[in-house]
Amino acid sequence: MKKTLTTLAVMSLCQIASADEGMWMPQQLPQVAKQLKADGLKLDPATLTKLTEFPMGAIVSLGGCSASFVSPQGLVATNHHCVYNSVAHNSKPERNLLANGFLANSLDEELPASPGSRILVTKDVSNVSNKIIDKATARLNGKARVDAIEKNSKTIIAECEKDAGHRCNVYPYYGGLEYYLIKQLEIKDVRLVHAPPEGVGKFGGDTDNWMWPRHTGDYGFYRAYVSKDGKSADYSKDNVPYVPKHFLKLAKDNLKEGDFIMVLGYPGRTNRHRLPSEVAYTFDWNYPTFVKSSGDTLAIIAMETSSNPDAKLKYAGQVAGINNYYKNRQGMLDSYAGSDILARKTKEHEELKAWINSNPARAKEFASDIDQVEKLIAERDALAKRDFYLASSYPRFLGTARTLYRLSNESTKADAERKAGFQVRDLPRFKATVDAVERNYDEKVDKALVLYNLSKYAAQPKAERSANFDTAVGIKDGMSEADLKSLLDNLYAGSKLGDKAARSAWLTAKPEDFKASNDSFVKAAVAMYEGGLKREAEEEELMGKIQQAYGNYMKAKIAYMKSKGQAVYPDANSTLRVTFGKVMGRDHGTADGLAWSAFTTVNGIPPKATGTGEFNAPAAQLAAIKAKDFGKYVDPQLKTVPVNYLATLDITGGNSGSAALNAKGEFIGLAFDGTLDSIISDWDYNKANSRSIQVDLRYMLWQMKHVDKADRLLKEMGAE
Amino acid sequence: MKKTLTTLAVMSLCQIASADEGMWMPQQLPQVAKQLKADGLKLDPATLTKLTEFPMGAIVSLGGCSASFVSPQGLVATNHHCVYNSVAHNSKPERNLLANGFLANSLDEELPASPGSRILVTKDVSNVSNKIIDKATARLNGKARVDAIEKNSKTIIAECEKDAGHRCNVYPYYGGLEYYLIKQLEIKDVRLVHAPPEGVGKFGGDTDNWMWPRHTGDYGFYRAYVSKDGKSADYSKDNVPYVPKHFLKLAKDNLKEGDFIMVLGYPGRTNRHRLPSEVAYTFDWNYPTFVKSSGDTLAIIAMETSSNPDAKLKYAGQVAGINNYYKNRQGMLDSYAGSDILARKTKEHEELKAWINSNPARAKEFASDIDQVEKLIAERDALAKRDFYLASSYPRFLGTARTLYRLSNESTKADAERKAGFQVRDLPRFKATVDAVERNYDEKVDKALVLYNLSKYAAQPKAERSANFDTAVGIKDGMSEADLKSLLDNLYAGSKLGDKAARSAWLTAKPEDFKASNDSFVKAAVAMYEGGLKREAEEEELMGKIQQAYGNYMKAKIAYMKSKGQAVYPDANSTLRVTFGKVMGRDHGTADGLAWSAFTTVNGIPPKATGTGEFNAPAAQLAAIKAKDFGKYVDPQLKTVPVNYLATLDITGGNSGSAALNAKGEFIGLAFDGTLDSIISDWDYNKANSRSIQVDLRYMLWQMKHVDKADRLLKEMGAE
Repeated sequence: MKKTLTTLAVMSLCQIASADEGMWMPQQLPQVAKQLKADGLKLDPATLTKLTEFPMGAIVSLGGCSASFVSPQGLVATNHHCVYNSVAHNSKPERNLLANGFLANSLDEELPASPGSRILVTKDVSNVSNKIIDKATARLNGKARVDAIEKNSKTIIAECEKDAGHRCNVYPYYGGLEYYLIKQLEIKDVRLVHAPPEGVGKFGGDTDNWMWPRHTGDYGFYRAYVSKDGKSADYSKDNVPYVPKHFLKLAKDNLKEGDFIMVLGYPGRTNRHRLPSEVAYTFDWNYPTFVKSSGDTLAIIAMETSSNPDAKLKYAGQVAGINNYYKNRQGMLDSYAGSDILARKTKEHEELKAWINSNPARAKEFASDIDQVEKLIAERDALAKRDFYLASSYPRFLGTARTLYRLSNESTKADAERKAGFQVRDLPRFKATVDAVERNYDEKVDKALVLYNLSKYAAQPKAERSANFDTAVGIKDGMSEADLKSLLDNLYAGSKLGDKAARSAWLTAKPEDFKASNDSFVKAAVAMYEGGLKREAEEEELMGKIQQAYGNYMKAKIAYMKSKGQAVYPDANSTLRVTFGKVMGRDHGTADGLAWSAFTTVNGIPPKATGTGEFNAPAAQLAAIKAKDFGKYVDPQLKTVPVNYLATLDITGGNSGSAALNAKGEFIGLAFDGTLDSIISDWDYNKANSRSIQVDLRYMLWQMKHVDKADRLLKEMGAE
Repeated sequence: MKKTLTTLAVMSLCQIASADEGMWMPQQLPQVAKQLKADGLKLDPATLTKLTEFPMGAIVSLGGCSASFVSPQGLVATNHHCVYNSVAHNSKPERNLLANGFLANSLDEELPASPGSRILVTKDVSNVSNKIIDKATARLNGKARVDAIEKNSKTIIAECEKDAGHRCNVYPYYGGLEYYLIKQLEIKDVRLVHAPPEGVGKFGGDTDNWMWPRHTGDYGFYRAYVSKDGKSADYSKDNVPYVPKHFLKLAKDNLKEGDFIMVLGYPGRTNRHRLPSEVAYTFDWNYPTFVKSSGDTLAIIAMETSSNPDAKLKYAGQVAGINNYYKNRQGMLDSYAGSDILARKTKEHEELKAWINSNPARAKEFASDIDQVEKLIAERDALAKRDFYLASSYPRFLGTARTLYRLSNESTKADAERKAGFQVRDLPRFKATVDAVERNYDEKVDKALVLYNLSKYAAQPKAERSANFDTAVGIKDGMSEADLKSLLDNLYAGSKLGDKAARSAWLTAKPEDFKASNDSFVKAAVAMYEGGLKREAEEEELMGKIQQAYGNYMKAKIAYMKSKGQAVYPDANSTLRVTFGKVMGRDHGTADGLAWSAFTTVNGIPPKATGTGEFNAPAAQLAAIKAKDFGKYVDPQLKTVPVNYLATLDITGGNSGSAALNAKGEFIGLAFDGTLDSIISDWDYNKANSRSIQVDLRYMLWQMKHVDKADRLLKEMGAE
């Protein structure tokens, strides 16, 4: 499981089915205090609701990954795959940090993380539903509603961000029925401190991803830096380590099966109460198409980088990401194929409608919105189908040019009037992204990928294509692949955006500069601009209608479930959540007659280690295992060092890097994955199969002490 | 796990380490009554000591396999691999009962089992130690001791067998310290009633043999026939089904993990307290050599029968047997390689010697015999090494000729004076064996196997070869493989023993007829006779010395263990034993992070079924699984039909076909295998790994009812 996927921000809700199910908002925990205590929590559940107290104060977001402070000097523990891009960013063919690992032996040796890296500490969460959907907004629909929500959000955010060094965002919950303002301290000087070799941190690679048994040392360390006066600041040599108010203490007790465990982090997205039609669209069309396309994309990247190690390194992060989703989606499709999910969702939806229609007042309040939401969702899915290949048919620099031109146009307005994402607060991220392109871009690869998608797009009937795009780049009916290739060759050859200085210059250019340019991608971006705005307005019109109807549909659903005595927690939406359960194996594995032990151990590494590729365990590690050089990290029952363990936690993408804590709130490892036959839980919670996979703290410390000699960090964390 | 191996009949003893360890003599069960009750047995443990009462009265031996009566008409349930030779015996290329299975739809359709098949019902067990080692014998050593023991045994056996239709034998226990006379009803008319297709009964073949997860329907049925007056009788059309005094009732309760289970049967051989030098010889030389030789033997048989389906069928049973031991020995070698067994056994042996030497009286009684036994065992092992290839260098008919000539010579003596094994009581088995050769013999295969071994034998230095054998068949120093082949061609061509009538005629021939014969194998047998007797006498001299010294060594060991408060049970020796424990999965599998579920189910069959070879599940079975045509055999927890299950029972080769009973003594399946990483228990009981594998009664009944339509048998067993 890797970084969270960005999907349409439609939230939903779930019933409380069991102790293990549930990604709780911290403020909801008193509702499940009894269960927390019964499961073994030794802390007062109320302390978990206080974001600036221990242990919540130690939990941070990396934006897409979760993490936590583990020392008084701002040391941050997260997954190897969450620091992966920073390791790749600092790698060169002649100094391959991915392969060899990286260990800073002093603060001076700590390296800047990849551009745009942030450490975000949630400081405050407040319900702003009545400010976002105020009385005036409640009466609106379509684009006007979207605009009003955006305007209200921007006002609230701007007010909040007056506190310098903070980043604020408004998140919808329960399908847009509720909105919360989340205020985060934004640490911008992030440095890479330590990552084990890929043969540890990514041991098992894509083969073992989502699998059990697992032997992956999926951990890495960042450090938060701030200015000397303790404020958030851009990178500077003069910056100093951030001193967090709280950090996690290492567990002293040996973890064992049956122990209480909780995970604090930022799960990305779940879809547990979507409409039956959304389920059908996703599993019958979207995921199968995505899987096919991803497989082809991986093959193209492999072919185009086969004799170019530099390009291969640049695309390593993207390949990892695609592989991850490829396996994830295929796993969900496999689970779905044998399931009754659609039939059950359909039945539940029909029951909801019957409940609504059984009462005139309810029918009046909800019935037409239910009809409406079904129609609108069908419309949205049809558009998504239509534009599937178009979305990947833009050369990277055409996308960059369009963004830069939009930025230039938005910059002519007062800040508050600008489109969200193009405000002054967004400029640093723009600059970082535009600057960093070379790190993960190769023209040959980009062109091959675009040609693959463009060929499929161009083969669609004209009515299914975008006239705006076709005109701007010169697509005509019946073009052969050779025609398209020649068209792309001309486009790429006619642009200077591949030059970093030239590209950066456009960050501050005026709209008239763009209009006067002969750069092929800039010209195409200008040509597409008006059409693009029109298309955006149409999409927002649809989005606004959906927001209104979906919100009301969710309101009906909550009322219905409450009528059955069932409480609800909101679907994951990349905000701070708590899940708790037990360290626990599984009485059934993936083959009939096999079960899963709760722990794997270092004993399982040598049999898997092939000395190459995905199972390239370092020689020093294998030697330490052979010599049983385990020190104090040996588990008394297992008689060896535990590596990974299973738990009955409800996590998903975005939880990667989340701290796992024991009953005393002590650090016991990092969540980093789920299992392939349980990821369907994103859509339909599966209690029997759901297991999260954690890297055991003892394995991290053992590898750091006995193999990688990271004594400085061990001392800092209080391990020695 | 298949039929028991014949090894040197040196017994040993074991401490009682746990409830699961122990192959108890029925009369010992009151000693563990408390544990039996604690584990859940609902019967009175005392009833298990009564061999002619329920349930012991239902338990039988097939000689090498275990079995039990399961109907009032003498229906006998055992493993598929225990009826395998009878199925093969009745198979022809055009009527392949192995592949298609066999089901007699009436008594008339039941087929004679393979020649020599017996059903043996243990009627009485009595301690005859003082009669076997009487005062006179106790003073003897060497061959004289062996002769005296044999004479005493024969006297006791002859007395016992005055009861017609019974077979009696004297078995040594505790390394020859004790002897028991066992009297068995010998049913000679055994008929094949039912065997499922090989794709059920041997599903998984050698690949899955000793493995978990397992999906093998390892069951088959015989029926015992007797004369109309109820006596043991040779096959006759007029015979009628035997009416056993007791038979097993089918369990009604659903079996589940944690349930009490016991297995009643005839385990063959364990070696848990051998001398360290015996352990070293076995694991450093004997097993590795055996494994190499078996692999070559299998390859030769495969090559020689590749274009001859008839020969292939004839050797199917031998191939199965060799494969079984091949995997077994390799499995033990693997377990041994990573273990401290030899070091531990050496340490224990040294402790025993220190204990003996710490007391003058003990030293006087035992010390010289301990020295002696170490020396003698080393001598025996050296001889076994020397003769390893010689033992397989006899053409089959040379062996037959030697046996027949010995029989002819022995037959000139009074019955009581004849060598054990050549008495009147043994003649029927001789006749059956001599008659049946064609069933499992092919000259081309036999010659190729002999040539392989003879080449290795002939390459040994002259001093390591048998002058007697060399002279008789014409082996000289430095013969090439071509020379040996030509020698064999002449030998085989010069004999008529391949002709059944000619061969049978020798059963009643006089020694002078043999001496006058020009048959090449008969001539060689005559030439080897005197030398063979001399060699036998030398071996018996050694055996007698070992018997005396080993017995005293064991006496010392028992005394030593009793001094530490440890009770003992005798090692397995192919006599009736009881083991009990629990139905139980395992918290560790064969790979780190995997565990074993207690049950496999029919759901696991389709993923394994390849439609060919070892995983050729019948189409009708796969269709029934797909249709979930499970009827009443579905397990309420598993929601499907269980196939095999694990239990913490202490079994070994010879237990194959043993009835598994629940706490009420009801039939719940058949033991048929152990797991590869626990068979080292034959030498060193491994509590953590040891699991027996049973075929679940519900799977047997489901397959018989829903796939094979064996309604007649189901009704007879009371299943319907």
